[in-house]
Amino acid sequence: MSKLIGNAIFGQSGGPTSVINASAAGVFTEALRQTGVIEKVYGAANGIVGILNEKFYDIGQEDPAELKLLKTTPSSALGSCRYKLANPEVDDTDYKRILEVFRKHNIRYFFYNGGNDSMDTCNKISKFMQKAGYDCRVMGVPKTVDNDLYGTDHCPGFASAAKYIATTCMEVYLDARVYDTGMITVIEIMGRNAGWLAASAALASYKGYGPDLIYLPEVDFDLEKMLRDVQRIYQKENKVIVAVSEGVKTREGKYIPELVGELRVDAFGHKQMGGTASVLADYLRDKIDCKVRAIEFSLMQRCAAHLASLTDVEEAFLAGQTAVRCAVDGMTDLMVGFQRPAEGPYQCEINLVPLSKVANTEKKVPR
Amino acid sequence: MSKLIGNAIFGQSGGPTSVINASAAGVFTEALRQTGVIEKVYGAANGIVGILNEKFYDIGQEDPAELKLLKTTPSSALGSCRYKLANPEVDDTDYKRILEVFRKHNIRYFFYNGGNDSMDTCNKISKFMQKAGYDCRVMGVPKTVDNDLYGTDHCPGFASAAKYIATTCMEVYLDARVYDTGMITVIEIMGRNAGWLAASAALASYKGYGPDLIYLPEVDFDLEKMLRDVQRIYQKENKVIVAVSEGVKTREGKYIPELVGELRVDAFGHKQMGGTASVLADYLRDKIDCKVRAIEFSLMQRCAAHLASLTDVEEAFLAGQTAVRCAVDGMTDLMVGFQRPAEGPYQCEINLVPLSKVANTEKKVPR
Repeated sequence: MSKLIGNAIFGQSGGPTSVINASAAGVFTEALRQTGVIEKVYGAANGIVGILNEKFYDIGQEDPAELKLLKTTPSSALGSCRYKLANPEVDDTDYKRILEVFRKHNIRYFFYNGGNDSMDTCNKISKFMQKAGYDCRVMGVPKTVDNDLYGTDHCPGFASAAKYIATTCMEVYLDARVYDTGMITVIEIMGRNAGWLAASAALASYKGYGPDLIYLPEVDFDLEKMLRDVQRIYQKENKVIVAVSEGVKTREGKYIPELVGELRVDAFGHKQMGGTASVLADYLRDKIDCKVRAIEFSLMQRCAAHLASLTDVEEAFLAGQTAVRCAVDGMTDLMVGFQRPAEGPYQCEINLVPLSKVANTEKKVPR
Repeated sequence: MSKLIGNAIFGQSGGPTSVINASAAGVFTEALRQTGVIEKVYGAANGIVGILNEKFYDIGQEDPAELKLLKTTPSSALGSCRYKLANPEVDDTDYKRILEVFRKHNIRYFFYNGGNDSMDTCNKISKFMQKAGYDCRVMGVPKTVDNDLYGTDHCPGFASAAKYIATTCMEVYLDARVYDTGMITVIEIMGRNAGWLAASAALASYKGYGPDLIYLPEVDFDLEKMLRDVQRIYQKENKVIVAVSEGVKTREGKYIPELVGELRVDAFGHKQMGGTASVLADYLRDKIDCKVRAIEFSLMQRCAAHLASLTDVEEAFLAGQTAVRCAVDGMTDLMVGFQRPAEGPYQCEINLVPLSKVANTEKKVPR
């Protein structure tokens, strides 16, 4: 395959994780090394929005020492976005603009770091460039605490969030058991459609300090069944810890806060949807006479970089680095993923996945 | 002073901190070393409740290697309690029972680890023993994330909680700033009457990642003044982070959740007090058109032992160790506290405080 000479750009999209900057460091370090092929290396400010607005950072101008620190810098150094590109068949304004910007700055390598939606964006941009006859290699770099990307054993960002969740579940378990009085604790964990994060609470059980019950969005949620489960454990143990994914839904498709959406009003009379944990805690408090606490792991589960997994940091870096190497080698329209041997100690190898496949599939926890 | 020979007991009381077991380790290690004076060393299960019920652990039977691990074991290894002893002048049943248990087991050294209420308990027990002519040395070991004990520069448990709060504020700051859209984040921090914990959010500002506004219970809370402050910063920055102590009150003495206590109903129609942060977030969302998040640091701020301060661990151990040494040397009715030189690098020296003084004073943040 012929050598494609030009400039490269990298953008970060969607919610932060503890390791997105490690992927940025991987892309930048490798791209700057590809002299003679990649001429200039840019970082887009706020992802695709920065490309539309021609707001780039010239990474070659950065202090190499700072670039080294980037690998372990929390959150998104470039800024992120939640901008949704239209279907190009309906409205191709943004795509034309991106092509214009790419042409103007001779962008021949486009690396995008994100989850399902971002991989879809990536794929659509790539198809548009191909149609327009503009030679540009597009590679997706996975990023999500939700761990729901297709074609990869796991996603950068997930391990660090799982480590936070498991660690904090253990600590909450210990805190909740010091009194000899009854107590029920309901912990709310992120994950709209996939329960990987909530499931990672089970890692705390490995040391004997895990939740008694874990509810994932993959299984229809039954409020009365939960009550019976909690009652059964409470009668025996006097203490119950429930971990629940924010995304659990009843058989009728209602999220938990929607069950009371009509009843609750906010500080000044407006309807207000509570959090999943607090609604369940209210419900249990009403049925079982004991102290019931709701705890939301909130943003902390995705931003607690002080507890990042080193393996996660290294793999996020590797994903970025690999994206650049593959693109320079002539590949395009792929997301860098991982695969693991079915047995034996932990090993992680690269698995390249077509962006079109990633874009349309959500990987849920298997039953 | 004559040598008082007999057995010792130690109990933990009130909410857990990351370092209460370090104090336990300090007491146990030192007490076991005092052969010839202290004969048996007991740990009370669930604090004073364990004494009333004669539920002790014989610490001399424990594996010394396990005892070493105790210093860095999270939460309360012995179990805690929130049992309130009656005023002995009104009802001395519990005090008589404690005296009976102490006599039966020849307890001559009583060490109690807790906050204001526990020091009060300690003081009352000591006074009762004196009146009854039962020779027993009583020493308080401070423990509180709230940092509100009189007579000590700071309290074991506070530094670790402050470290969690400052670290997490920095991480939330970074997470909340990745988008180019407006966002207001309200963080709720523990502290019913004293604002030390909420104030520790200011440590994040030292690195430039702190909250824009911090509200402490020491100052009357004015909802409209807060709105004006938030609006002013929002107009300039497009991002605002508010840290608020759960204990802030209006000039009329109402806690924030009480402001809407009449309006909010729970999942099944019952009145429900929301959290301080969520009520303020509802209010701000109503007034300022942008994304508003409420984050409660909840139990995590006091139980996140993975982020404990090493200085805190060492000082908690020292407090326990000193309590034993002082009691063996003939002292009683004192709490072990700390003092620091007014200037120069961090140093921490022992400051012994009469229990009667600690029992009746709450140390608030000075204005």
